[in-house]
Order: sequence, then C-alpha cells, then structure tokens
Amino acid sequence: MRVLGVDPGLTRCGVGVVDSAPGRRVSLVEVGVVRTPPTDPPEVRLLQVALALDTWLDRHNPDAVAVERVFAQMNHRTVTGTAQVAGVAMLAAARRGLPVGLHTPTEVKAAVTGYGQAQKEQVQEMVMRILGLSARPQPADAADALALAVCHAWRPPGASVLAGVGTGVGAAHGPLTPAQQAWARAEQAARRRG
Amino acid sequence: MRVLGVDPGLTRCGVGVVDSAPGRRVSLVEVGVVRTPPTDPPEVRLLQVALALDTWLDRHNPDAVAVERVFAQMNHRTVTGTAQVAGVAMLAAARRGLPVGLHTPTEVKAAVTGYGQAQKEQVQEMVMRILGLSARPQPADAADALALAVCHAWRPPGASVLAGVGTGVGAAHGPLTPAQQAWARAEQAARRRG
Repeated sequence: MRVLGVDPGLTRCGVGVVDSAPGRRVSLVEVGVVRTPPTDPPEVRLLQVALALDTWLDRHNPDAVAVERVFAQMNHRTVTGTAQVAGVAMLAAARRGLPVGLHTPTEVKAAVTGYGQAQKEQVQEMVMRILGLSARPQPADAADALALAVCHAWRPPGASVLAGVGTGVGAAHGPLTPAQQAWARAEQAARRRG
Repeated sequence: MRVLGVDPGLTRCGVGVVDSAPGRRVSLVEVGVVRTPPTDPPEVRLLQVALALDTWLDRHNPDAVAVERVFAQMNHRTVTGTAQVAGVAMLAAARRGLPVGLHTPTEVKAAVTGYGQAQKEQVQEMVMRILGLSARPQPADAADALALAVCHAWRPPGASVLAGVGTGVGAAHGPLTPAQQAWARAEQAARRRG
C-alpha cells in the first residue's frame, strides 16, 4: 500500500510518500516540501500547492492520502491558511477517487513514537528509524508528512481501530500494538473534542 | 463587471452572481445554495462543492470572485470546514486566472447596509432593495453571497479603498460614500486583527 502524507501549510507544506508491506514494514518513496511566497495572493498560493500536489499524485499514484486534521484551536494566526491547504489536498485526492485519512497530530505522534505528546525531534528521530533513513528528515514539515503517511499505513485496514479500545484487541485484526492503542485513545479523545 | 460571490460552508454554501454598471447600479444574475450531506466524508463534500462552483463559473463567466474571509475565531465547531470551502472557492477562481476578493462579514454588512454590525434580516432586506428583488433572498446564505458580490462590485477599482481612510477622499476615485468609509474602516480593523 502506498500512502501520500500531507502536512498542510501555506508557507511550507510537507509531502511524504511511503510504501507499506505486511508486518508493519514501511519504506520511503519520496519526501519534500512545497513552499509558496507569502507575498503572493492567497488564492495564487493555494493554486501553487494544488498544482504541486497534482504532480506528486501523478508521479507516485498512491492508494490513499493522509492529511493532518486541522482544529481551529491550533494556532489562531495561521489556522485559516492551514485549513485551506488541507482542504485543497483533500480535494485533490477526492478528484482522483482516492480515500482520505484525517489524523490529528496527537494520533500521528502516538503512532510513530508511542506517545501522543512527543516533541518534534522525537517524531523526526522515530521517522528516521522506522524508514531506515541515514538522517532525520528536514524540515519538520517533511518529517511530519512522512509520520502522517506511516500513521495511516499502520492503521488496521477495513475495521475501525476503535473496536479494540479498552480490550486491547482489534475486532478484525488481532491485538493492537501499544502504539495503536495510544493512537486509538488519541482518536477517541479527538472525536470527543469534536 | 460580473462578480460571483461565495458564502462558504460545507452544509450550505451560498452562491450569488451580480452584474454591476456605472453609478453603483447592480442587478441579479443568479443566486442559489450548494448543499452537501453531512453523512458524506469531508473530502467528498469538498469535491461536491468544487464541482458545483465549476458549473457556476462555466455558466456565468464572472470577472471576479468574492469570498468571505474566514477567521479562526468565528465559530470553533465548523470553522475548519468553512475555511476549507473558502479555499476550494479561491482555488476554483485561481485555476481560471480570476481575481479573488476576500471580504469580512463586517465589511460586507457595512457595504450593503452602511453598518458593520447589521443583523441578518437587515442584510437580506438591503440586498432585496439594492437588486430590486420582489422578496428577500432565502436562505441567509444566498443573501450573504449576493451581499459579498455587491460589496466587491462597489469596491473602488484599481486603488485600495484604504487610500481614502481618514480623509473621506479616495486616492483615485473621488469621495468615498459613507458605506465605503465604513467598509474601509472595517477592512482596516480586520487587517489589524489579521
């Protein structure tokens, strides 16, 4: 399964593609950052991101797109632009009929580090180890995009991971790993926040 | 000049098209609301809005697109979806090379009623009068989309309306009307918040 992860942002939008195989093996396909100049009108910046994402989708033909779930509370100054870029990424996927997974930062951190409040450096470190890279992905937006893709790839397919919460057992896919349990709790908390 | 106004929303997205002529004369071309079912995945809803806006743009070939400027503070529960629909509308315009005007609700209310804190009913009433309609546009999202288009059409072309703030005189377009002055103050306030 190939997943394209998007860490949305107008100034820097992280994009990362990973392939996953059975046994939680994942490998890097490509990672990068789409940048747009703050001096351009916002609609032109959105267009630049949309065109760049189209080239990534053309080049890698993923099976799914994972996008960070944006909450209004996150950062008042830039959240509108971030939400708009997330929307542009979701739209790009939907235009190709690709499924979209929305994951909160807490879910993503829990998936790759086992701890939902992990620091930026811990995420970068774990992404490097999980994908067997020789250096931490830079900048943080690139690492976050890869972490999103890994988080989505590791999500039990078909069944909601929430089925296993409280029992430690996934409904259709056997026991949850500790990271998956943390991820499920984070997702459940995010849903309660609504 | 033909302006397509978009009052963004996932559940109801208002769309209104007006033609403007010299002397602040404006006329209705078409108004409506794009609805998407809350039960659909968000990326599918964004795609439905994008496809609908494309048909509006094809049908009316506007010179500009006016979109409500979304602030994170507006409404925590739905602001992410609202911002994403605004982004989708801005992207649709940018793909056609159309200029996009972003206007705050305060600016729009000031433009059509002369008062930035006007109630929803006052906006509907003034939109009806300005466009010479026989009834108030329903629902409020449709009226808001028309108000956005009127607000944009009445904006002095070429020069920033801010040039006239404090003096009551526009740099290139003569005296500002009271509504334009209120609009300019609202815009200036919005930029300070921005």
